[in-house]
Parts: sequence; structure tokens; C-alpha cells
Amino acid sequence: MKMLINVPESVVADALRGMAAAHPELTVDVENRVVVRGDAPVADKVGLVSGGGSGHEPLHGGFVGPGMLDAACPGEVFTSPVPDQMARAAAAVDSGQGVLFVVKNYTGDVLNFDMAAELAEDEGVQVAKVLVDDDVAVTDSLYTAGRRGTGATLFVEKIAGAAAQEGAPLERVEALARQVNESSRSFGVALAACTTPAKGSATFDLPPGELELGVGIHGEPGRERRPMMTSAEIADFAVDAVLADLGGAGPVLALVNGMGGTPLLELYGFAAEVHRVLRERGVPVARTLVGNYVTSLDMAGCSVTLCRADEELLRLWDAPVRTAALRWGM
Amino acid sequence: MKMLINVPESVVADALRGMAAAHPELTVDVENRVVVRGDAPVADKVGLVSGGGSGHEPLHGGFVGPGMLDAACPGEVFTSPVPDQMARAAAAVDSGQGVLFVVKNYTGDVLNFDMAAELAEDEGVQVAKVLVDDDVAVTDSLYTAGRRGTGATLFVEKIAGAAAQEGAPLERVEALARQVNESSRSFGVALAACTTPAKGSATFDLPPGELELGVGIHGEPGRERRPMMTSAEIADFAVDAVLADLGGAGPVLALVNGMGGTPLLELYGFAAEVHRVLRERGVPVARTLVGNYVTSLDMAGCSVTLCRADEELLRLWDAPVRTAALRWGM
Repeated sequence: MKMLINVPESVVADALRGMAAAHPELTVDVENRVVVRGDAPVADKVGLVSGGGSGHEPLHGGFVGPGMLDAACPGEVFTSPVPDQMARAAAAVDSGQGVLFVVKNYTGDVLNFDMAAELAEDEGVQVAKVLVDDDVAVTDSLYTAGRRGTGATLFVEKIAGAAAQEGAPLERVEALARQVNESSRSFGVALAACTTPAKGSATFDLPPGELELGVGIHGEPGRERRPMMTSAEIADFAVDAVLADLGGAGPVLALVNGMGGTPLLELYGFAAEVHRVLRERGVPVARTLVGNYVTSLDMAGCSVTLCRADEELLRLWDAPVRTAALRWGM
Repeated sequence: MKMLINVPESVVADALRGMAAAHPELTVDVENRVVVRGDAPVADKVGLVSGGGSGHEPLHGGFVGPGMLDAACPGEVFTSPVPDQMARAAAAVDSGQGVLFVVKNYTGDVLNFDMAAELAEDEGVQVAKVLVDDDVAVTDSLYTAGRRGTGATLFVEKIAGAAAQEGAPLERVEALARQVNESSRSFGVALAACTTPAKGSATFDLPPGELELGVGIHGEPGRERRPMMTSAEIADFAVDAVLADLGGAGPVLALVNGMGGTPLLELYGFAAEVHRVLRERGVPVARTLVGNYVTSLDMAGCSVTLCRADEELLRLWDAPVRTAALRWGM
């Protein structure tokens, strides 16, 4: 498999150099692997820090900026960042109002963010943590005890980020992040495996003519393999899997997400089918975001994330944001 | 090759249904294949209309909205739209101030937009046309007499769109669009071919271990094939090819564009190399946009577009825009 890289060992550092070049409004510490909003720490504002393995871009570095994250810590491809990165990020963004860690539920991330919280607290930074675990496909998996964290991370970071930007205190920002996670569920599908730079070939075998229902964002196994399905059939399966586990009532925020290798033309066709299923199930859709946001390198496939959103969550979703990958209102 | 589709025949209509569902601020005529900003015609504003074959998303439908295009006309995959589509679009967006057609230089598009201009003028709409032909890779090619139109289309549509939004008259909007095209050059590289829904397999053969330098956005042959190169070597080749043909002096707007199948992690690493080459050549970079904007379905690869931008072009580039794929300031 050919890749647009120099050597596999430098892909993360090279990408960070590119972020620094393309986004002068960010402070990118390439050596220590921390991406920080350029004006951090912002006075009297709670800091939001996230991070995780690389390979899911634009998550998380593409979500750093006013109205969303204050800092992101990229690990190696599909590998947790180390505690020192998050502790550095916390120190860089803390204005005295405390810092919220947004942690996707993978064992390595959870352990390392726990350790980072201790390091940061030793330095006098108040830290709260929210675990994102929205993937209904499987409980316990490769890399994870409990449900995996996937697309809802974007909703948590946007909505908690908007609250922090407005000056909400740490307990409120944390409570909102928790509410968004608890109100969100996801389901993913792979049509073709991804290729990591280090391996240089497909990370798992997916026979021609089959798809993986419930795949994780590192290609972890899902619920089952089936003969290839149409976009409409996939939407039926994925949306029903999400709704079966999603409590509450009322309108949803919908993320129709590409895994990285599926063209936008196909994603929009899939979005039409997702809307059709939701209409048939009587679920109103308040907002829809379509695109490659929580990816797995070049994996072909998609995921659906739904979040039951009350008026306050929608207001915070609509609030201005200025990051590399999500931007509106400023 | 597996795809996230229903049947190949309906991919364009399905995607338009998805755009309509996800973007209620647009008016999407699925049957006639015209995407129009929901508040068109905007009083006293020149209308901007573009279009072309599908498979290059988000171009052009993703660029419809305040500050950019008023309407887009998608053809079948890699196939020109028909004159009736552009004529309908012109009628839908004309406020009496006239309409500018932004046409990528492919023989089918040129002929059909010419015919559409006649149809529109018969209905009393004043039409001007600007041809985009920025690709320095080859002169005359599959589908094209002269240079192909590629990444500069985004610059033309954004900058001319901003001028139109500010109320500039048709001659001024046309002159700006022409200036942006004449100030822009592009060069593209393919690492792997794309797959059209109708064919279901790779549209051209690219042997393992080789890349195509100067590829077109439909996989048209470029200048040469070479053994696989590093990201740094590709940046050297592509940027030098662009600079060799780009007149003028001063800062540039840079688009580091993915062809669709290359992960953002790799594109950012490539952006770092593009910036390095420009620094070595003494070319200051005023703005950089990194992402999948002018694509070829799932083709792996990238392109570089540079535009010599004076203060006025930069001001119009920075002006507020609200479309599905480019959005800031509103």
C-alpha cells in the first residue's frame, strides 16, 4: 500500500509540522506533541483537553480552538498519548478555573489520562474527567473494557467547549459533557480495512463481498460479518442499533461520519437513508453533520452517532466555533 | 470494490437527497439536479453558478451558500451536467444583476455552459463566463483542450463569491474570477486510482510501487510515472512544477488538497513539506487550506494549488462564507 509519507516513524511529527504551518493561530509543540490554542490560557475559562491515538483526524487536533478544545495530545497511530503530554497540555491551558479531560474509553487512554490528572493536580491544576463510551456495537472489545468511545466525542467536545467558552464553571462543563455522552450512541460499519503506516498493509481481513457491522475505529471486530448490503440496508441496521440503546425522546443531533476512505458522494447518499430511517421511526432530526470527522486512516465505511439534544444542547451546538475542522460563526 | 451505495444508477440523486436532508438552508431540486441557496435570488446581487461532473465533492454543491456560489449543477459521475441544468440555475439565482458561470476547462462542460448561456440570455438573463484552467501538468488531455481546471476552482468560487456577496457588479465579479484563475496554478499526484460506481473497479492501472505525476481529477494521465516517492520528494516536484508556471511575486494562498482517499494525517504531513519547499524558494504563504476539497472519489493522492494573492484577494478570501464545506465568519 502506497502512502503519502516520508517514513512511518515520522508521520505524527510530520502532521504536526503541517498543522503548525497551516494554522498559525495554534501553538503546536511538535517535540512534545501538544496542540494548544494560540491564546491559551484564556483568562477565567475552564480548559478542555483531549487526546488519543493518531489516525482519527481531524479528531482531536482539528477541534482545537475558540469554542471547542483548548488542547489536544496526539499519540502514535492508534496508540494512547502518554501522561506527560496531557499534563503539559493541562498546565498550558489552565487559567485557574480547572481543566476537563475528555477521554475516549480505551484502556490505554483511561490509564494515561488518570495518571496525567494526578500529575496535573500535583502541580495545582484542578482536573475533572469525562469518559466517552457511545459505541453500542459491543461491550468489551480489543483495547476496551465496556463500550468504546467514537463519534460522540465530537458532540462532547463541541458542546462542552461552547459552555467553557461562555464562562461556565468546571462542574457545569463536566456535567454537560457527561449529559452529552449519556445522550449519545454510535454504530460503525467497515467496507474495507485501514492501513497503518507501520504495518503498510490492511490491519484486518475483510473478504471481498462482505462488510463488518459494528466495527471500531481501529478496525476492532464488530457484531458480525455479512454479505455486502446496500446503503439503505446499512442505514436500517445502524440506526436501529443506535435507537435500541438510546433513551429519551425528542429531536436528535446526527453525525453521519465517514471512516476516511469513503467518498463524500457516498456519505451524502447514506445521510439520505439515515434521515429516511429516522423519519420512519418518528425521530425528528434537529441538526445533521456529514463528513469525515472521526476516522480510521483510509478505512472505507461510515458510522452514525445520534445525540438527544434539548434546547440548551442545541444552542451550545450552534454557538460559534473556530477550529481547523469545525468552524462557524467566527 | 465495495461501495456505500444503493445502485450505481442512483448515486447522484441519492447524494442530492442527502444534501437536502442535511442542509435545510439549501433548496435542492433532486429531479432536475440543481442545488440553490435557499434565499435565492438575493436582491441586487450578481449570481454565481458552477457545476460539473459528480465525484469531486464537496466541489461544487458543498460550496453553495452566502459568500460563495448561488447554485451548483451536478452531472453524472465524471460527466458534464446538461445545459438545461445551468439555465434553470441561472433563472433561479438571477436578481436582474446578471449571472457568472464558473466553468472548469473540460470540453463537455465548456460546450454545455455555452449552450446554457444562450438559453439563459434568451430568457433575459445577462451571463458572463469564466473558464478555470489552472492545471500545469499537461496541455491538452483526455476530455480537455488546453489546461485542465482543478483546485483553483475553489479559489475562484470563494473570492468571486465574496465580491458578489458585497454587491460588486457583474463586470467586477467576472474580472476578479479571471484574475484569480490567471494567478493560480495546480499540480496533482495519484498514488492509487479511483473507482467509479458504474465501473466498480479501478478506472486506470497504477502498478504497485509507482505513482502518477500530474494526474487529472478524473484519473487522466499526467506527465510521467515514477517509482514511489516520499512526501518530501512529491512536494518538491509538485511545488516546483507549479512555480515554474506561476507568474508574479509576493505571497500565495495555498490549497493542499486531498484526492479523496488519502487520510488527513498524511495530508498534513504533506502540507509541512509544501511549506518547506515554498520557504526554500522564498515564497511567503499568506493562507493555507488543507483537506479534501476537489476530489476524485476514492483516489489516493493529493494536489497543490497556489494563487498569488494581493491584499484585495486576501480580504475577499477571508470574508465570511457559509456553505456545507467551507464556512467561517457566519
